[in-house]
Amino acid sequence: MDDRVTTAFTSTPQMAAAVDDSALVRHMLAVEAALARASAAHGLVPAGAAEQIAAACTSVRPDHDELRRGVIGSATPVIALVGAVRAVLPPDVAAHVHRGATTQDVVDTAVVLALRDALSLLGAALADAASAAASLAARYRDTVLAGRTLLQQASPTTFGLKAAGWAVELHDAAGRIAAARDDRLSVQLGGAVGTLAALGPDALAIADGFADELGVRRSPLPWHTRRDRIIDVAAAVATGAAACEKVAVDVILLAQTEVGEVRERPIDGGGGSSTLPQKRNAAGSVGVRVAARRALDGAGALVAHPPHEHERAAGAWQLEWATLRDLLLAAHAAATRTACVLDSLEVDVERMAANLHATGGATLAESLSAVLGDVIGWGPAQEVVRQAVARAAASDRSLRDELLDHDAVRGAVSTTMIDEALDPERYLGMAGALVDRALAAVAPVDSEVTP
Amino acid sequence: MDDRVTTAFTSTPQMAAAVDDSALVRHMLAVEAALARASAAHGLVPAGAAEQIAAACTSVRPDHDELRRGVIGSATPVIALVGAVRAVLPPDVAAHVHRGATTQDVVDTAVVLALRDALSLLGAALADAASAAASLAARYRDTVLAGRTLLQQASPTTFGLKAAGWAVELHDAAGRIAAARDDRLSVQLGGAVGTLAALGPDALAIADGFADELGVRRSPLPWHTRRDRIIDVAAAVATGAAACEKVAVDVILLAQTEVGEVRERPIDGGGGSSTLPQKRNAAGSVGVRVAARRALDGAGALVAHPPHEHERAAGAWQLEWATLRDLLLAAHAAATRTACVLDSLEVDVERMAANLHATGGATLAESLSAVLGDVIGWGPAQEVVRQAVARAAASDRSLRDELLDHDAVRGAVSTTMIDEALDPERYLGMAGALVDRALAAVAPVDSEVTP
Amino acid sequence: MDDRVTTAFTSTPQMAAAVDDSALVRHMLAVEAALARASAAHGLVPAGAAEQIAAACTSVRPDHDELRRGVIGSATPVIALVGAVRAVLPPDVAAHVHRGATTQDVVDTAVVLALRDALSLLGAALADAASAAASLAARYRDTVLAGRTLLQQASPTTFGLKAAGWAVELHDAAGRIAAARDDRLSVQLGGAVGTLAALGPDALAIADGFADELGVRRSPLPWHTRRDRIIDVAAAVATGAAACEKVAVDVILLAQTEVGEVRERPIDGGGGSSTLPQKRNAAGSVGVRVAARRALDGAGALVAHPPHEHERAAGAWQLEWATLRDLLLAAHAAATRTACVLDSLEVDVERMAANLHATGGATLAESLSAVLGDVIGWGPAQEVVRQAVARAAASDRSLRDELLDHDAVRGAVSTTMIDEALDPERYLGMAGALVDRALAAVAPVDSEVTP
Amino acid sequence: MDDRVTTAFTSTPQMAAAVDDSALVRHMLAVEAALARASAAHGLVPAGAAEQIAAACTSVRPDHDELRRGVIGSATPVIALVGAVRAVLPPDVAAHVHRGATTQDVVDTAVVLALRDALSLLGAALADAASAAASLAARYRDTVLAGRTLLQQASPTTFGLKAAGWAVELHDAAGRIAAARDDRLSVQLGGAVGTLAALGPDALAIADGFADELGVRRSPLPWHTRRDRIIDVAAAVATGAAACEKVAVDVILLAQTEVGEVRERPIDGGGGSSTLPQKRNAAGSVGVRVAARRALDGAGALVAHPPHEHERAAGAWQLEWATLRDLLLAAHAAATRTACVLDSLEVDVERMAANLHATGGATLAESLSAVLGDVIGWGPAQEVVRQAVARAAASDRSLRDELLDHDAVRGAVSTTMIDEALDPERYLGMAGALVDRALAAVAPVDSEVTP
Repeated sequence: MDDRVTTAFTSTPQMAAAVDDSALVRHMLAVEAALARASAAHGLVPAGAAEQIAAACTSVRPDHDELRRGVIGSATPVIALVGAVRAVLPPDVAAHVHRGATTQDVVDTAVVLALRDALSLLGAALADAASAAASLAARYRDTVLAGRTLLQQASPTTFGLKAAGWAVELHDAAGRIAAARDDRLSVQLGGAVGTLAALGPDALAIADGFADELGVRRSPLPWHTRRDRIIDVAAAVATGAAACEKVAVDVILLAQTEVGEVRERPIDGGGGSSTLPQKRNAAGSVGVRVAARRALDGAGALVAHPPHEHERAAGAWQLEWATLRDLLLAAHAAATRTACVLDSLEVDVERMAANLHATGGATLAESLSAVLGDVIGWGPAQEVVRQAVARAAASDRSLRDELLDHDAVRGAVSTTMIDEALDPERYLGMAGALVDRALAAVAPVDSEVTP
Repeated sequence: MDDRVTTAFTSTPQMAAAVDDSALVRHMLAVEAALARASAAHGLVPAGAAEQIAAACTSVRPDHDELRRGVIGSATPVIALVGAVRAVLPPDVAAHVHRGATTQDVVDTAVVLALRDALSLLGAALADAASAAASLAARYRDTVLAGRTLLQQASPTTFGLKAAGWAVELHDAAGRIAAARDDRLSVQLGGAVGTLAALGPDALAIADGFADELGVRRSPLPWHTRRDRIIDVAAAVATGAAACEKVAVDVILLAQTEVGEVRERPIDGGGGSSTLPQKRNAAGSVGVRVAARRALDGAGALVAHPPHEHERAAGAWQLEWATLRDLLLAAHAAATRTACVLDSLEVDVERMAANLHATGGATLAESLSAVLGDVIGWGPAQEVVRQAVARAAASDRSLRDELLDHDAVRGAVSTTMIDEALDPERYLGMAGALVDRALAAVAPVDSEVTP
Repeated sequence: MDDRVTTAFTSTPQMAAAVDDSALVRHMLAVEAALARASAAHGLVPAGAAEQIAAACTSVRPDHDELRRGVIGSATPVIALVGAVRAVLPPDVAAHVHRGATTQDVVDTAVVLALRDALSLLGAALADAASAAASLAARYRDTVLAGRTLLQQASPTTFGLKAAGWAVELHDAAGRIAAARDDRLSVQLGGAVGTLAALGPDALAIADGFADELGVRRSPLPWHTRRDRIIDVAAAVATGAAACEKVAVDVILLAQTEVGEVRERPIDGGGGSSTLPQKRNAAGSVGVRVAARRALDGAGALVAHPPHEHERAAGAWQLEWATLRDLLLAAHAAATRTACVLDSLEVDVERMAANLHATGGATLAESLSAVLGDVIGWGPAQEVVRQAVARAAASDRSLRDELLDHDAVRGAVSTTMIDEALDPERYLGMAGALVDRALAAVAPVDSEVTP
Repeated sequence: MDDRVTTAFTSTPQMAAAVDDSALVRHMLAVEAALARASAAHGLVPAGAAEQIAAACTSVRPDHDELRRGVIGSATPVIALVGAVRAVLPPDVAAHVHRGATTQDVVDTAVVLALRDALSLLGAALADAASAAASLAARYRDTVLAGRTLLQQASPTTFGLKAAGWAVELHDAAGRIAAARDDRLSVQLGGAVGTLAALGPDALAIADGFADELGVRRSPLPWHTRRDRIIDVAAAVATGAAACEKVAVDVILLAQTEVGEVRERPIDGGGGSSTLPQKRNAAGSVGVRVAARRALDGAGALVAHPPHEHERAAGAWQLEWATLRDLLLAAHAAATRTACVLDSLEVDVERMAANLHATGGATLAESLSAVLGDVIGWGPAQEVVRQAVARAAASDRSLRDELLDHDAVRGAVSTTMIDEALDPERYLGMAGALVDRALAAVAPVDSEVTP
């Protein structure tokens, strides 16, 4: 189906290559080859037959329409796939193809192989985005802007700290995804009902050899109907998507016409409007939100998956891959575009300062309370500031003037102290130190994530 | 992306043709053409220019890769689409393309056109499934089987009534989908922020003409950020998917080895296992569950959609179509395969009777209470039956013998009465009448749904 | 469990009274009474017994801890409930309590009675909110502010039209909820497996009488495992929650420090911060978002509900009520607080104008193109405006000056025309007419919704 | 609100005590006390004042109705809570209460404290359930029953292996929950916008001391708007709920009238029906499904949470706790009832054997292929078995007879070999060894999970 336009927001060519049908079929064939070889190592399959099977699995190109018909008729592509392999082999060799395995062994292990590639791609993309955010955090470590809670200016913070928060969340997500890849992906091999009965007395050794052939973790028990691995993978990917969506929402809010503190540098003339030449839409961030939300919806569905009955589910299992695939495509789109947005972000330092000053020092209320508190007591200080803020809001006078005129302040506190308390640069607390902590934490991400 | 295998469960070629990018692009071009014509009718665009635009919209074939790039760069395919149309027109005509509209007008109206086709297809597929279920209900109107609650045999019912329940649910879903199509789909035309300012003083008349050109309902107000229509469509589709899943779950349960009351006749040699020749999997029903669950997950996500900010959302809107499209594809796959499953269902009437009799009359406990109740009082009767059931379960003796030997029964109630009370055919209540009601209700669905 | 604090955002006392256990138990007792009376009307139960049962159902106060134990032990409260009624009646009367019904008949019909009240409450609350929005739309019908798309200023619109959009969405949701209440709620009566076998030969008439006793719609067939009604109710409620969330999001965005176009008048000293005296949080809107999102999550889960097996589900059915109840509580909290927010909204007309003018006429680009287009052609006009906007953005000069100095404009277009094109009040298109349409549509809602 | 009946399925008194408002308020007060003490340690608050504050936090009992009003008015209970503490202190001390913190610091850290208790409770309940499953696995290590895939009998397995699968999944979930508790819960302390500005120059040390006072992990950076911790907790809990639902679904299926391999021993006379004395519903398992599904819906919503804007979200944050609380309540109900179900499970070993034999050896098809394959070649063997299975299914003859009469078998394979191949006990593969592996893995869970 032609869907290049519809999936533009929610897929990338790189991830598509890792999770499309060609990849899945290639992996399923690799699984059949590994099974034959591992079986041969324990005499279950003749060595020569195993090599012929492995060669066939490398060369055969199953007809995807045939596989599709297999899915519709038999609820699995594996019967048709095995048929395609057997068709190119002599009968006595063909009979050994797929021996001892069940369709779910083949599909689950192929999905694990696809996930291995996909999670590596996704981790790398998130690490790139984290690096881009870290660069912003370093560059704007001490750039003051209004911290906003419930979308209201609250107290000063730095753009560095905001970007550091993005960086840490993106980096941690990359780490979680790498951990899911390394710790949670293991082969599936249990045979028809999970007893490995058709693999003979050396079945456990064959299962281990099968894992080793594929370079995937061994599995102490088959996990046909225990899908906690899928929950773990989905949740790890969700942390990545959520990290991207956080960046996008902040950028869209900061880029609002009335805020104007950042803007995306357009990609290839993008960001425009069909009729409004003045608009500079945060198109990249919009795309990130679309992709991230799609990924999060998919992750939520996978986490809340239906139960798997008995030794193989009648539906719940067969449902998984399409959702997983969409999740990975969307998360990778979100991550790569987040990196783009961050790389292309234009930061308007003056506007940040201007927005903060526009409220006449009200965001320094806490700072004023602290300064006054040391002199007139913390409780009275809070009350004085509350009154002054209210008076300034109701009049043309500045908060500074209201304070200096206040009975409890006049004479007690110097103008210099008030002015210092009203200086946002002096009320940034640990912002710089926290940025440094974040940058230290984020630094080694590249080497960790990309194997 | 090649995904014929992965989407085998969750798509159909017919629905793909209705909702793929070619359909969407065709509809977007039709929208631009209709806008030009409606504008020309009120003098906003020269009549000749409108016809040239309409002709271009029929002949131009925008490059989908170009549109994809447009989405990534500008968060909409419309700018590139308009560019493609303009490129084949003289400058003075080209300038009138898309005049007065905003990208969302074009996409939303194109989506409405795609939905119109898609909902018709889906309604027809559900109506087919309803007909197939109704045929079963008619054929097996009086075939007795165990009614099961909490997956335990409870009281006798008929396979006819079970199938009638399926038929009514499928039929009602088709009706709901037809109603959503007919009542809830209307054009979108508001211009940049919903005021239609760029359409001049006849804007409202142009908007009506625009709707008439496309044969779609007029809209009293633009609905750029009011998405209740989408919730309505998603919920209607969900009722269809749920109706299909209900059939599939019942069939899978009835087809269990130990129940064996129905089985799917294999399609093209399907239903088999990769290694177990004896298996007759309910592969069709498994496929229905996969498709239905995917549709329901999508519907849930659309119903719980994120809010749309101000006059056009920054993400929530752009997210909709991909989910809607998947929902429609999956729902159609569910509906068409449900019809297949129902058409191919082999019903084992003997097994139904045997399973019911295997519990030695225990499912007639309520019937016995009623018969005895008329003689010895309703309260004592319940107690007598309770005791007899318990004794029979704990012994080798039949419930009938336990009852006939019970002090409160012996002498008071004739053997004939007990035997009649133990005859499931005599304890079907209104089953037949309800089947007839259902068949009458379902009958006219075809003509209603397919326009 | 004490949860007044935790549920503060997501419940109201009024809705709690409609859906708490006391209400549910009262409704279950009413159902048993109605069943006895309807059965008596057809001789199934002695008339005197039916009246004694009905009286007992009015006076008995079942122990809720006992019912809870019943749920845990038997997966239904009905056995314990019936026991409590029987306990206060003579044995020969007691035996007729619940005769012919199954637990699901009692619970589902009680839920329908609770839903009837709950949907009326919710519809009224949404109608109140719609009225409040309509008042704003009327009062600010012609108040100009920036229309914003993708959170960027786009073109002028009116606050009246924005509020009219809220009003229509709230009003339509109230209408949908009233329709769900009136069209989709019907009694449940099928007996053990839906055949009404235990209700004798007049079962269908008894079922109709049962409905009439309760003043609820009759049901042509039992619907134990067809839950499309639940989907319909959930989707209708979702449109209400979404309408509330839309208002809340817009208010929060308009109330941002840097936008400042509206603010909530604090309720009882609320809206404050624990440490920041200057903050005027949109606390009401935050509460609306919390409640609306909770409702939408619940609606999504109900729409995507698991399948109901055979003649009664083993889990999927028993799951419904708790989610439905939470949905109704949250939706009512959202609706009532939306009405509060709208009633208390302070609108800063000057700030709206100032924000719009702050962009120096750029939001009138489309207007300028139209005016110029009539003189120099639509295509060249778009290009001229594009250039002038870019130059103004890159310089200190105004868009007006850039335009007046443009070669293609100077001499061709009068200053007056440019000034008129730059007047937002002249570029509101159909805003006023659309507000009037909306007000007309919304007007009669009160009488419709509150019965 | 009275909801003991409605929440019977989805809550437990123990978890309610850990997550109800009293617990939350107690934790919020503990947070204020810890903050005062940690601040005093660095001279920010006078030592005497800190102790007075801590004492007040122990003794004060804030009015929950007042806190509820605070939530409604200010979107947070903290202002009212702080007010309640201050009210019992002298003004100069009162002024130091809550100094340097923001409301989210208090709520998030209190939630972390509640989560610590709740996750311990939940882990212990899952460990109990795992132990109960492990006991079944040990007791029935070698009990043969039909392995079922897609709800069809496939090959023999053991009830021990089935129970071992349950045990491992429950145990792993307990481990994951313990890990989430130990690794992912850390204090929140950032002040108004995350800079800790109001905590003075020793802010970072105060933050560490604050964590130490509470015995909770330190946090390198505030995480006000990074909610990956919540995703991790939700996903861990979801693995527990999914493990419970898996047990419940298998038990319900095994307990079907026609399967009858297990049944729940009724609790307190439960499991009955309101009208059908013969029924033995798997009421416990139904309850588990309700609770597990509710938990999974909640987990899905938390994983797919909306984005958190800027330095504190306007809604997304305030939404979390109610959903988290419901998730924990439901998951604990699921876990404790799963333990009950497993402890009370009656296993019918004879019925397991009978069901397996009822298919006349067809489940040994794979075994037969292997035995024949060694003699006549693997390919021909598969074909012979396929034919024999088909013939037996279509006739009155047994599979054994069909095989012995087959041309390719007669003379080539001894009757003894065929009989051995048809013995399910000889075709269990690694079932016993896998049970032993599982039991070894599950054994130490108790000491791990309960601290």
